[in-house]
Amino acid sequence: MTRAQPLAVSMGDPAGIGPEIIAKAWDARVTHRLPPFVAIGDARAIERVWQGPIARIADMSAAAGAFATALPVLTVGDAGAIVPGSPDPDGARCALHALELAVGLVRTGAARALVTGPVSKSQLYAIGFTHPGQTEFVAERYGVAGDNAVMMLAGPSLKVVPITTHVPLKDVSALLTVDLIVAKARATARGLLRNFGIEKPRLAFAGFNPHAGEQGALGREEIDIIAPAIAILRDEGIDATGPFAADTMFHPRARATYDVVMCCYHDQALVPLKTIHFDEGVNMTLGLPIVRTSPDHGTAFAIAGKNLAEPGAMIAAIAMAGEAADRRALAAAQA
Amino acid sequence: MTRAQPLAVSMGDPAGIGPEIIAKAWDARVTHRLPPFVAIGDARAIERVWQGPIARIADMSAAAGAFATALPVLTVGDAGAIVPGSPDPDGARCALHALELAVGLVRTGAARALVTGPVSKSQLYAIGFTHPGQTEFVAERYGVAGDNAVMMLAGPSLKVVPITTHVPLKDVSALLTVDLIVAKARATARGLLRNFGIEKPRLAFAGFNPHAGEQGALGREEIDIIAPAIAILRDEGIDATGPFAADTMFHPRARATYDVVMCCYHDQALVPLKTIHFDEGVNMTLGLPIVRTSPDHGTAFAIAGKNLAEPGAMIAAIAMAGEAADRRALAAAQA
Repeated sequence: MTRAQPLAVSMGDPAGIGPEIIAKAWDARVTHRLPPFVAIGDARAIERVWQGPIARIADMSAAAGAFATALPVLTVGDAGAIVPGSPDPDGARCALHALELAVGLVRTGAARALVTGPVSKSQLYAIGFTHPGQTEFVAERYGVAGDNAVMMLAGPSLKVVPITTHVPLKDVSALLTVDLIVAKARATARGLLRNFGIEKPRLAFAGFNPHAGEQGALGREEIDIIAPAIAILRDEGIDATGPFAADTMFHPRARATYDVVMCCYHDQALVPLKTIHFDEGVNMTLGLPIVRTSPDHGTAFAIAGKNLAEPGAMIAAIAMAGEAADRRALAAAQA
Repeated sequence: MTRAQPLAVSMGDPAGIGPEIIAKAWDARVTHRLPPFVAIGDARAIERVWQGPIARIADMSAAAGAFATALPVLTVGDAGAIVPGSPDPDGARCALHALELAVGLVRTGAARALVTGPVSKSQLYAIGFTHPGQTEFVAERYGVAGDNAVMMLAGPSLKVVPITTHVPLKDVSALLTVDLIVAKARATARGLLRNFGIEKPRLAFAGFNPHAGEQGALGREEIDIIAPAIAILRDEGIDATGPFAADTMFHPRARATYDVVMCCYHDQALVPLKTIHFDEGVNMTLGLPIVRTSPDHGTAFAIAGKNLAEPGAMIAAIAMAGEAADRRALAAAQA
């Protein structure tokens, strides 16, 4: 792949803020030095919310040339009525088609990296989508088992990995296993090297219980599950430390001591990340043969179509995907 | 009680950083306009780590006069060898005696408010302490049932209440009940009025599950427990809202929309609070007839005796206790 190839950006739910933030990211392409990208979805969804120039392209080779003066859009599917803020099954189907096509474009090499716009899980479930989310969908398309695909959330000063993700919190204790933690940590360490060039990433593990369990007095997951996983990882030469009391891990001085925090559950990772980097958080999937990012927020139906959406996270997702793809291409060329 | 009466500050574990941060708070008394306070514990613990002037007093009436030129200390118990960083049972017993005496001094009116230094729970458990923590100990001394005593953590821009506290995380779902949430919320609303003068405090409730359960798809605690509790509270005229996805609640714009976040478990509350206000978080107990605060950190044995402890949280705890006691005294005088 060469630098000239564009990124594929799936639009997400056409009734959400995806179309708007993709268009606003194109508006910001010069300021943020964004690499060329193509929006994948129904071009009408963008026209509903944005007055800028659109270049409807038929294949990806036309994208780089068009990008300087118009937002290239590769239309797939028909999103139906498209009422911003009012999702419907036609829109969900279009979001799924866009995701599928975007994945395929990266797979064939026509696109350098994948950036996915926000979808509504409940809308997707309603049309028969059986994966927990887009991350798992993409992982399956690449034949990567769920435990080896890692959702990492990244902002300018913090990276976090939730070892379990979209599951009821009361089920997490039973889902946490030594094998799961080891698999996620290995994929994380490799991903930080491949995508960010961090030679020996420092993985800090958060405890599961208050005060990391206080030596078992407040819970045993640290002793029975997390510490043994850390021991295995250290034996493999991975710089794994902890488990630490989660509430002591995220202030500025603490953040200087690691490259990523391995968290036990969704909110343990997402609460600090979004507290610090609400408008600029990026979701990056590690463990895939390709680079995939997305903005770390939802469809925000409540503000869709009102020109209120902040594009910061989408801009960061596109920039991060481009940089990671550059790094991988360079490493491949040197190999 | 009059303004002239001092605050009672229990030293906490003598081998921890309690003695050092109390002494450093006295050093900062003018800059931070701190009200007079008395350290309760073994004076030798302070002498081990601080070279400033100490006034060993025999009763509280001598404190206010001494405070300008020396740190008043009321010695109770014998802390034994006192090796900073190396806790032992003698120290734990001294910490418990200091707490008991400090509570008694506030009870009799000899002190205006209670500030407690950090103790080691495991050290206290080892000498037979049967309460989960100092909060529950103080509540029991005042005949306040556990559900009605509320641990609130407060920093300059965020207040949080963990509805459950020092329990294994996997037990939280079973411990969360409508009654518990309602009791904690009532005490919180009253406490914000009494201690901070907030007439109609806005209580925002965090969900338990990722994305606040996504309408039941990721867990049902929001539907079955939290929402019904909120409905009861609203019927009582309390400004209760939510449950909201926890990860969206703590960035600066969100924090402007409420006075306190009611959280389901320890880390949901403590992670954002300490991420934002690591060196200045105050633990205040609401629901008591007295004012009680403490710095929101532990004994920090690892840095004890090295002159590395930051006194910010202790300074904030003393200042907040003084202001709340002033507010209560004024309200009582006007009643």
